[in-house]
Amino acid sequence: MQLLENRSAELRSRHGIAFHFTGIASRRLGWIANPEGLGEVEGALARELPKPDPKINDVRDWLSAARADVLFEATSLNLETGQPAVEHIRAALAHGAHAITANKGPIVHAYRALRDLAAQQGKRFLFESTVMDGVPIFSLFDQLPAVHLEGFHGILNSTTNVILSQMEQGLSFEEALNKAQQLGVAETDAAHDVDGWDAAVKTAALVTVLMDAPIRLDQIVREGIRDLTPSAARNAKRDGWPFKLVCRAYRTANGVEASVRPERVRSSEPMARISGTSSYIYFQTDIFPGLAITEENPGLHATAYGLLADFVRALT
Amino acid sequence: MQLLENRSAELRSRHGIAFHFTGIASRRLGWIANPEGLGEVEGALARELPKPDPKINDVRDWLSAARADVLFEATSLNLETGQPAVEHIRAALAHGAHAITANKGPIVHAYRALRDLAAQQGKRFLFESTVMDGVPIFSLFDQLPAVHLEGFHGILNSTTNVILSQMEQGLSFEEALNKAQQLGVAETDAAHDVDGWDAAVKTAALVTVLMDAPIRLDQIVREGIRDLTPSAARNAKRDGWPFKLVCRAYRTANGVEASVRPERVRSSEPMARISGTSSYIYFQTDIFPGLAITEENPGLHATAYGLLADFVRALT
Repeated sequence: MQLLENRSAELRSRHGIAFHFTGIASRRLGWIANPEGLGEVEGALARELPKPDPKINDVRDWLSAARADVLFEATSLNLETGQPAVEHIRAALAHGAHAITANKGPIVHAYRALRDLAAQQGKRFLFESTVMDGVPIFSLFDQLPAVHLEGFHGILNSTTNVILSQMEQGLSFEEALNKAQQLGVAETDAAHDVDGWDAAVKTAALVTVLMDAPIRLDQIVREGIRDLTPSAARNAKRDGWPFKLVCRAYRTANGVEASVRPERVRSSEPMARISGTSSYIYFQTDIFPGLAITEENPGLHATAYGLLADFVRALT
Repeated sequence: MQLLENRSAELRSRHGIAFHFTGIASRRLGWIANPEGLGEVEGALARELPKPDPKINDVRDWLSAARADVLFEATSLNLETGQPAVEHIRAALAHGAHAITANKGPIVHAYRALRDLAAQQGKRFLFESTVMDGVPIFSLFDQLPAVHLEGFHGILNSTTNVILSQMEQGLSFEEALNKAQQLGVAETDAAHDVDGWDAAVKTAALVTVLMDAPIRLDQIVREGIRDLTPSAARNAKRDGWPFKLVCRAYRTANGVEASVRPERVRSSEPMARISGTSSYIYFQTDIFPGLAITEENPGLHATAYGLLADFVRALT
């Protein structure tokens, strides 16, 4: 929310958007709402917030009490069900608010239902920050009408990419993981990254939305980097053919096949030089046989920016 | 127009767009208009077209007679004045039609005036196919609200890139140019490409639109590839540090500095592997320090596609 508040003058002058925060909710804070506005939210975390309203029992009550026009959904990912994010987004759209999320769960578990509900309500369901930190990937395809996506491959998980880069330089897996955590790129649950779940969920989100082919996580061949030894990583790199955790999807006669696994990548291939926190995706389409996007060393605000950009998209 | 006609069913079902061609004009054909529609235009070039209307004297008369909602402007580039494209686009917007062009002249010579006229008329002035064959570059920045572009570099001219690739393989400059012409990538006037004009005009268009800093062609440091010998190209490639015709622009305290010239590119740099008809651009922004787009081996329809995508953007 800090980025939103920092850019509020620009949002007003360039996009005609004025806003205030009328609600905050979390497990710790409870349901807080004031339709007149809560003041600066970034500052609010340091000062005393309004008491939670005991009359508010659930997300629907809260959206009404806050008279929300836009919901930013930021609960953490539940791989199995996508909840409670799916219900939060459903409630927001039903209430008549745009729903913006950085959570991949709702895309994997309820994309078509939420997309259709949004269309029916004349509101937007947006999730640009779920893949590549807010680089406009989903929005790019909004700008590619009548283009058919045949497949894609790429490197979409920073933690494993940082770990592999560190192991190539001689660190053990544990040391490399610590390094990634120090850099602030490893998520709370390292297994989520290391075992390929994060990359698989991103792959599923891209397949579901951009190839219009809903895919379950158990349909994606998934292998993490836990079994790679530092010497294997080092030798592969030395031979100019490094390991990367590669996401792939391609259309077949029977739907879409997708995988996430460590692959050795030829040095002539752009993926070979995607190191550290950079990421990369290569799209194969009927009009553009190879359209690739590289995000090098994303800044601190890249993910938050995705939410801000969705906010502007929803309102303009 | 072939691509438009091929995709007409999809444009109707997915985007709710139905259309017919109500006018064609060229120096050879004269001003032809029929508000009821001219039938299939692609076929029309083979069969007999309606006679030009002697009552039509200029583009304004013609737009009225055709009752045009959208103009596709496809005259060839005039580096000095941008005419007659600028007048055609001005007339279309004044008439109340969207104006879509593949011509870089109007951007370099009249961008702000045409943009403001379009806004005033509630119509769109679109030109996505002018840079990178219709890859959504300008549209990408429409999806990057509140992002500030600090600079960019890239490879944007296919002819010189094909010539350099061929010279590295031992061909003389003349042989390499012939090869590029056989491949259909060299424009009619090879000097336009070889002397860096095409790359410079593209650079000027990007600076003007995306950095909001109009720049004249004579403000861009420009050097072509004519003085590169085949042995220099070959040796540079052999040493892993090939020559590329590189476009650059960056913001300074006094505006924007821009150049187009042959540069030796390190093999670790993504530009080093952009060969043949592929192109590449790397954007440096405040939020995304490095956001790069690669177009590999564009298909035959890539430029035409840019016009089609602009058509959908204008109408949806």
